Amino acid sequence: MPGEFDLIRHHFTTPTPHTMLGVGDDCALMACTPGHALAVSTDMLVAGRHFILGTDPRRLGHKSAAVNLSDIAAMGATPRWVTLALALPQVDEAWVHAFSAGFRGLLAAHGVDWVGGDTTAGPLTISVTILGEVPPLQALRRTGAVPGDDVWVSGTLGDAALGLQCLLQEGPALTPEARQFCLDRLEAPTPRVALGQALRGLAHAAIDVSDGLLADLGHVLDASGVGATLDFERLPRSAAMRQREASPGADALMLAGGDDYELCFTAAPGSDSRIQQAAAQAGVAVTCIGTITAARERVLRDATGAPMSFAWQGFDHFRPD
Amino acid sequence: MPGEFDLIRHHFTTPTPHTMLGVGDDCALMACTPGHALAVSTDMLVAGRHFILGTDPRRLGHKSAAVNLSDIAAMGATPRWVTLALALPQVDEAWVHAFSAGFRGLLAAHGVDWVGGDTTAGPLTISVTILGEVPPLQALRRTGAVPGDDVWVSGTLGDAALGLQCLLQEGPALTPEARQFCLDRLEAPTPRVALGQALRGLAHAAIDVSDGLLADLGHVLDASGVGATLDFERLPRSAAMRQREASPGADALMLAGGDDYELCFTAAPGSDSRIQQAAAQAGVAVTCIGTITAARERVLRDATGAPMSFAWQGFDHFRPD
Repeated sequence: MPGEFDLIRHHFTTPTPHTMLGVGDDCALMACTPGHALAVSTDMLVAGRHFILGTDPRRLGHKSAAVNLSDIAAMGATPRWVTLALALPQVDEAWVHAFSAGFRGLLAAHGVDWVGGDTTAGPLTISVTILGEVPPLQALRRTGAVPGDDVWVSGTLGDAALGLQCLLQEGPALTPEARQFCLDRLEAPTPRVALGQALRGLAHAAIDVSDGLLADLGHVLDASGVGATLDFERLPRSAAMRQREASPGADALMLAGGDDYELCFTAAPGSDSRIQQAAAQAGVAVTCIGTITAARERVLRDATGAPMSFAWQGFDHFRPD
Repeated sequence: MPGEFDLIRHHFTTPTPHTMLGVGDDCALMACTPGHALAVSTDMLVAGRHFILGTDPRRLGHKSAAVNLSDIAAMGATPRWVTLALALPQVDEAWVHAFSAGFRGLLAAHGVDWVGGDTTAGPLTISVTILGEVPPLQALRRTGAVPGDDVWVSGTLGDAALGLQCLLQEGPALTPEARQFCLDRLEAPTPRVALGQALRGLAHAAIDVSDGLLADLGHVLDASGVGATLDFERLPRSAAMRQREASPGADALMLAGGDDYELCFTAAPGSDSRIQQAAAQAGVAVTCIGTITAARERVLRDATGAPMSFAWQGFDHFRPD
């Protein structure tokens, strides 16, 4: 049975062309770009909590990279370097190989160097720290939303939550194509890295939708000291969601479903064409779903303009299930 | 019961005077120092593997910071910023408060800003990523040892392993003072940050002793393509170790005991006085324990100069216990 150091050497050492010194010393060494701020974010994924035990390891590796790239995207930063700390119940070469391939593949597609980490025995737990760079005045912060701003979201909402329902065999069945689409959205999400960078100087505030639209937009509203009015009918929905939208609970999937990893951002009214151009360059659709208000109220309207009641709360990992 | 976000807000948000944007957005933002390389290291600590369940949380917080600071020290870098990812089985305010105090306290003593992280439910697991800065040509790498170099080590060896024996009630009893000293070395180690920085331009190669002297020095020898001859009698031992050194297995504590977090480094012969001066400034003793050799042999000599047989191997987290 190969040991820890062999594992690291074989699967976790990859070329690091953008790094002065990669894996193999007490620290990795990197050169920062002058005039840029360093952006850092950390996420931890725990088996049975953030993913189902038995999840395909290649997709799990992909997702572990994606959730961190999504934080960099939400800051408008360019991802540069990543470290991985991994606790594994036992050495399983095939698992490690597949996980590493999924992790490495998505990072390589974004030009990110995997510069270090740690591997240990323990309950399956994945902790990733990502480093990016951004000109500091162009960083997309949560604090910049102002009254009158349009509220935008990329992609479609609730697909990952619908994918989780498929896995748990809850709710009415979807067509095979729709089911696969939702599983892909859940297990192999696409971080909106190019969109985040294209929104520099254009978006006033941004966040990624990881805990559900209302919860994450709520963080922007809190940080900016403003309110918002959203139109439920304008929420972007996929073909898969359209198969389900008449069923009870579909609204909760779109409003509070986690793991979408879309960007929610605000921008000045009248910047629609520049935003649509940025989104087209980034290869993702964006939709205007509402307006920022000076009154610190959170209003969700139905198709008739009447207020809908829905709790603007997020997923809390410690809330009793 | 307070939720995840409350926990983070109350205990994990501390002043970040050296940071552009701290906790509360998708990323933290920091300004790198021109002319410096960024040094990054990640460690993961798992309950039951790296520490005993029930370890005093304040000391566990201290140690979680210390093991990462030690990697920065071994690079000769200045620690700047840290992120913490923490999985906790349940919310225990008193535990979180004490852990946070221990973690924050050691970081603050080193001028390090705690800039972000993640908190989730899960088996108790701690993952820390630390960022430091160092002028790139002065970084203490593992690759720089050359034949003729003296081999040095800071502090004393094997105390933490002796502390673990005390906890497990193995081996002959120590005096109460010696026992407490060893438990402190195990549970609240002192990273040699000032020493690492003082060795810039002086040490040829360095590593921190986390997996045992021979294993860690072995990494330097591998990286540098050299061998070493060590004199067992010269290994620095504490008063506590002197109580045990006549007992069977004491040599293994000093040669292969983990968790010392001392620095092992090599330097040109004849630099003794400059090294002793650097160590005095840093407030820690250093001892010359051997010589780097061109022959890629690893020799350990007893008091008579005869070779001792001892396996130069490290702790492998996946080796069957």
